[in-house]
Amino acid sequence: MSPRPAEGAEAPKGPSKSELKKRAKEEEKARKAAEKAAKQAELEAQKAAAEVDFATEFYGKLPLNQSQSRPRRERVQIASLTPEHDGQTVLVRARVQTSRAQGSKMVFLNLRQRIDSVQALLVLTPGKVSKQMLKWAAGLQTESIVLAEGVVKKSPEPIKSATVSDVELHLTQLHLISGLDTKLPFTVDDANRPQENTEQNAADQEQEAEAPEEAEAEEGDEGGIKIKRVLLKTRLDNRVVDLRTQTNQAVFRLQAAIGSFFREYLEGQGFIEIHSPKLQGAATESGASVFEVSYFKGKAYLAQSPQLAKQMAIASDFERVYEIGPVFRAENSFTHRHMTEFIGLDLEMAIEEHYHEVMELLDGLFLHLFRGLKQKYAKEIETVRKQFPADEFKWREGPEGTLKLSFREAVDLLVADGVPREDLDDIDTTNEKRLGRIVREKYDTDYFIIDKFPMALRPFYTMPDPEDPTLSNSYDFFMRGEEILSGAQRVHDAKLLSEQMRQKGINPESMKTYLQAFQLGCPPHGGGGIGLERVLMLFLKLNNIRRASLFPRDPKRLEP
Amino acid sequence: MSPRPAEGAEAPKGPSKSELKKRAKEEEKARKAAEKAAKQAELEAQKAAAEVDFATEFYGKLPLNQSQSRPRRERVQIASLTPEHDGQTVLVRARVQTSRAQGSKMVFLNLRQRIDSVQALLVLTPGKVSKQMLKWAAGLQTESIVLAEGVVKKSPEPIKSATVSDVELHLTQLHLISGLDTKLPFTVDDANRPQENTEQNAADQEQEAEAPEEAEAEEGDEGGIKIKRVLLKTRLDNRVVDLRTQTNQAVFRLQAAIGSFFREYLEGQGFIEIHSPKLQGAATESGASVFEVSYFKGKAYLAQSPQLAKQMAIASDFERVYEIGPVFRAENSFTHRHMTEFIGLDLEMAIEEHYHEVMELLDGLFLHLFRGLKQKYAKEIETVRKQFPADEFKWREGPEGTLKLSFREAVDLLVADGVPREDLDDIDTTNEKRLGRIVREKYDTDYFIIDKFPMALRPFYTMPDPEDPTLSNSYDFFMRGEEILSGAQRVHDAKLLSEQMRQKGINPESMKTYLQAFQLGCPPHGGGGIGLERVLMLFLKLNNIRRASLFPRDPKRLEP
Repeated sequence: MSPRPAEGAEAPKGPSKSELKKRAKEEEKARKAAEKAAKQAELEAQKAAAEVDFATEFYGKLPLNQSQSRPRRERVQIASLTPEHDGQTVLVRARVQTSRAQGSKMVFLNLRQRIDSVQALLVLTPGKVSKQMLKWAAGLQTESIVLAEGVVKKSPEPIKSATVSDVELHLTQLHLISGLDTKLPFTVDDANRPQENTEQNAADQEQEAEAPEEAEAEEGDEGGIKIKRVLLKTRLDNRVVDLRTQTNQAVFRLQAAIGSFFREYLEGQGFIEIHSPKLQGAATESGASVFEVSYFKGKAYLAQSPQLAKQMAIASDFERVYEIGPVFRAENSFTHRHMTEFIGLDLEMAIEEHYHEVMELLDGLFLHLFRGLKQKYAKEIETVRKQFPADEFKWREGPEGTLKLSFREAVDLLVADGVPREDLDDIDTTNEKRLGRIVREKYDTDYFIIDKFPMALRPFYTMPDPEDPTLSNSYDFFMRGEEILSGAQRVHDAKLLSEQMRQKGINPESMKTYLQAFQLGCPPHGGGGIGLERVLMLFLKLNNIRRASLFPRDPKRLEP
Repeated sequence: MSPRPAEGAEAPKGPSKSELKKRAKEEEKARKAAEKAAKQAELEAQKAAAEVDFATEFYGKLPLNQSQSRPRRERVQIASLTPEHDGQTVLVRARVQTSRAQGSKMVFLNLRQRIDSVQALLVLTPGKVSKQMLKWAAGLQTESIVLAEGVVKKSPEPIKSATVSDVELHLTQLHLISGLDTKLPFTVDDANRPQENTEQNAADQEQEAEAPEEAEAEEGDEGGIKIKRVLLKTRLDNRVVDLRTQTNQAVFRLQAAIGSFFREYLEGQGFIEIHSPKLQGAATESGASVFEVSYFKGKAYLAQSPQLAKQMAIASDFERVYEIGPVFRAENSFTHRHMTEFIGLDLEMAIEEHYHEVMELLDGLFLHLFRGLKQKYAKEIETVRKQFPADEFKWREGPEGTLKLSFREAVDLLVADGVPREDLDDIDTTNEKRLGRIVREKYDTDYFIIDKFPMALRPFYTMPDPEDPTLSNSYDFFMRGEEILSGAQRVHDAKLLSEQMRQKGINPESMKTYLQAFQLGCPPHGGGGIGLERVLMLFLKLNNIRRASLFPRDPKRLEP
């Protein structure tokens, strides 16, 4: 929770001349502002002394909550307010999204709780709401947390500025629970503005991620009104405020929902959850992108996936296992879809006859997920769409089912679209996207499976095809032309496994305990790993994976 | 997945003289065995040639499953077999737990799937089961995985050696799916034997954990029969076999169940799941026990808990959040209850009036968990009890509810029991256990809460008591006299937080982004963190936390 680790060995420099000049200017400005405020305060104090405030009990800052008392007074959720509550007095804890005086007799507030908001007003009323109270309320800083008591009133006309449009709160008391000790880096209103969801935008963001220091808040001009765009870097540097937007409140409810549907489906299919260690004794799978940890007098390594552990769980007879947990990749890349730490949704299962049992189960899992999100999270998806407009995510239902292409068929589609066949030993990310567009046009789906990848493209633990040893029993799943799952039948025979390790340049001795699991008898099995943030990003078309992670990590970001 | 990191800088030594001697002996032994086997095989071949085998199709090793075909033949679960299936032919994939010939006409097998097993027999039958088939079946190595076809028959008397006691399988076909390439380190039968569950045993295990090299398999004498006890180190070194015991199959179903009840309860209370990064920019909370990671050109640190992140999620308006994930502690200790990596069940929530809202919710969570385990997992608990006999876990139900003591009351109980008051500024683990015994005697419960810990014993982010600043709004939960949850109201005011950091010797500058979350306005909140493996260990009285972790990690164990 401190500044980023230094990049290189350079000592920190002192402030520059222009920096010093800027500071002096700021100090001068602050001094003047303070003088002005003091004068103002004096005037107001004189004025206030002339008028006795009958409302002092009804507003003001509460003492710091240290659990002094427990009156057990019910507090309501904004989302639950309806015209049926007309006339009732309610108590609400909420953020002040906006607060503005209208003339000298009224203050309008927008009170917010997560993705919901309601309009509240304070009207000068003898014996109830004083001038001082109005003034105090109008001066409340945006994002303050207040405890508001008010009477619910049916609204004469729909209120467009709040999510609750048919009632408003006529406040009788307003107290500050928690204020701000600092200036807001940007307002939640600004952070919540619609983005143009274009490829250009996505490209900008990638560039921005690569050179984050250059990106700053940007002013735009829209319909004559100056508006502020808050760039991704600024958002991530001030993630606590950024996360308060209705968009982000919805994004992370959807993230939790994906995990929840994943579990629900798998538990219904007889899977149990496991937790495998992230600290490993050796750099496994691929040594290049592993983080090294100082482990007492020795070294440990962070797991790049639970692959080995979940296979060992199968050798241990757990039959069907899943895990939700962090995976770590020490890849020094700054794309829109890479992070150094992300959440893996992993599963592994014994197969009876054929690896398509796994592939079909995974397909069932995704359909369960897509249907669940559409049916139960329409409000959250709608909320995100307001900021990130996107075509609705499409998949195929009914008897024809999910589109399944072999790797060869996928290559043929790309060749027919004009890609030279000699570029297609592998399908790179550009061609993946292109394939996604071709498939959408031809098959009207954003979701499909590619089966039977060439063995050369897959890791050592992949089972080769029984007839063509250049092919493998492996598959990738795609959403909007990006890979979101990779899986396969695994080799469960220790001898073949050692052989394939050697072919890929791995010394079997370095993975002894893993190999031992198969020497001790292991059933045929297969599985897959899903990137949680990728599924979320692609379902919602957020364009940058950092938006799908609460506190994202990349090679240059370890904060907040 | 390779040998442990070297302890110190010593270069690996070549084999010693005695090692070389031992190897030569082993080689000689192997050569003789091979000769003997060759002779035997020759004899048998001659004999077999004399008798034509009519059953070759009905047994033998199957080719490596590479998904050659998919006949879609149903395979059943052993647990589902009942006398109602009498006369039906079924297909089962299972482990061979035991296989023994009885006379020359019959072979008995015990077939196992997870916590279930069934007796199978193969009877010499003209045209169906040949001599050769019997011989092959009798020679199947323990732990082989077979595909068995057989007819379900009601058993004339209860079969004690299998969990399915009322039917047996009369085999018609038996094929080997996956054999073993190595000798078993111990049998699953041996690993599943009852343990004496004494304090002495627990103490031995601690010692064993501290000097793991000294611990080896041990032979005992019980009722005249030589039996093997498999010690913890041996089990953990060969965890893949150890995990196959019915005990461990049940233990890890119960582990998954605890996570599941945790989620179920919290989601019912409006919590959402978050995933916070384990890679941190700075060593937080307490610098001493943090693992350091090489992070590109700089350093990162592994999170000791999601404490800071979940509080920031509260400042971000998520209101009620939980997380299930690994936490890392670089503590060089070898007790029965410490690991360097374990699973934290963490939650944090905004409070309306008083921190007892959180404490009561946590209590509700534990009651939900205990009731759920008792009601829905009786079979698994019973399975574990067979190996680890223990008093049933007791808690208080009904209007009196969970026992809640203040720290002061807990101290008074210990003083009344004879502990000198001057030893009780803190309650150490010995006194915790003593308190557990006192409470069980006096209140008939293994589960209780201690509230209002002295401020001096709690971390900087703990909210002080509103009246007595030497006390704090914090609590611990206990099971069988051991702490399983620690929690508190947190400080949500940035100024008080900085002050308390300084008092505990932490430079607020080093935790800038964390502090910023509170400067930007944060509601009063509280929470707690639960150790998943501790709850599992104590509920089942497993005596050593390593038994409650799939692949445990301690300062000397990074494998398997």
